[in-house]
Amino acid sequence: MGRLIYDTSMSLDGFITGPNPRSGDPLGEGGDQLHTWMSGIADFRFRHDGSGGEASANAKVRDELHRRTGAILIGRKIFEVGEEPWGSDPPFAMPMFVVTHRPQSTMTKEGGTTYTFVTEGIESALEQAREVAGDKDVLIVGGANIARQYLQAGLLDEIEIHLVPLLLGAGVKLFEGAEQLTLELTRTIESTNVTHLRYRVAE
Amino acid sequence: MGRLIYDTSMSLDGFITGPNPRSGDPLGEGGDQLHTWMSGIADFRFRHDGSGGEASANAKVRDELHRRTGAILIGRKIFEVGEEPWGSDPPFAMPMFVVTHRPQSTMTKEGGTTYTFVTEGIESALEQAREVAGDKDVLIVGGANIARQYLQAGLLDEIEIHLVPLLLGAGVKLFEGAEQLTLELTRTIESTNVTHLRYRVAE
Repeated sequence: MGRLIYDTSMSLDGFITGPNPRSGDPLGEGGDQLHTWMSGIADFRFRHDGSGGEASANAKVRDELHRRTGAILIGRKIFEVGEEPWGSDPPFAMPMFVVTHRPQSTMTKEGGTTYTFVTEGIESALEQAREVAGDKDVLIVGGANIARQYLQAGLLDEIEIHLVPLLLGAGVKLFEGAEQLTLELTRTIESTNVTHLRYRVAE
Repeated sequence: MGRLIYDTSMSLDGFITGPNPRSGDPLGEGGDQLHTWMSGIADFRFRHDGSGGEASANAKVRDELHRRTGAILIGRKIFEVGEEPWGSDPPFAMPMFVVTHRPQSTMTKEGGTTYTFVTEGIESALEQAREVAGDKDVLIVGGANIARQYLQAGLLDEIEIHLVPLLLGAGVKLFEGAEQLTLELTRTIESTNVTHLRYRVAE
């Protein structure tokens, strides 16, 4: 069974969005800068064919994630924000499970992406994701809220932080309001504009 | 002229103290874990004789700071909290300048530490610290408040973050309320229980 990993970009001062995130500007003021390290990395798009890809530390990190990930978990909010920009051939190219209170039929996109809406809670969503992921990992992408729920339920195995040299001053915090927790640093990959840090959640 | 560097340990979620810091517990709940990476590092004590010192990445970082630092700036609060534990032979062994509103005569301790109280503001304190530091750097140690003032005045050159694999959930934030700012990552030193990150403040 693969691991459950929360993957997020974060500012040096601990924010995963800028201040005042809202519909139309989900990353908040200045929050788009959290993701510029991914620009120019062709294989950021999680393509199964593995074509392209800058031979950089950043690209390696995205490639590692791509190869090891079998399914993705997201919250309803991220789905609503992402559906349009991700388009008819979403970059993830794998099954995605949306944790939501609103039932909806599964949507099948091009390139291997499906959106399955799970209304039975986070454990059911994880179970369904694990079933399709097989030995690969399940990745939580996006909002801190769903990741915190998995953390608090004791289901989160690892946290992958892409630490961006940026002060945002305010915004959505990593694991806002979670309990204190000691982690174990397991992997550091240096790059010029971001530091990729992997932590194991202590049992 | 040396650089002005803010040096602080910080949790992964961006706090430099735990929740509810107060007199008698200045680091807040769980905040002492921010500094355990320094334990067992003899030369953390900034000793001029350079004796001891674990040959670890962490010790190297402390040694680098020691060799390059000529004076230290602290706020009044840190002085009040630290004076007693630092004792008659304080670990810094160099001139220290306390930014305060309360005039007080300079205190001379053993081992080269002096506490000079500066009531003319942060620029005067920096000027006096630079005078004794010569070509060496001036280090800001402790609270985020004084560091933020130097940052906002455009006087801060670098930030040294000792990123500790720990979630604190609440506490004093790095540069609370500062403007958004892009930094430049200039140096990463990996260790097993902390990541030492050096950032240049963009001009």
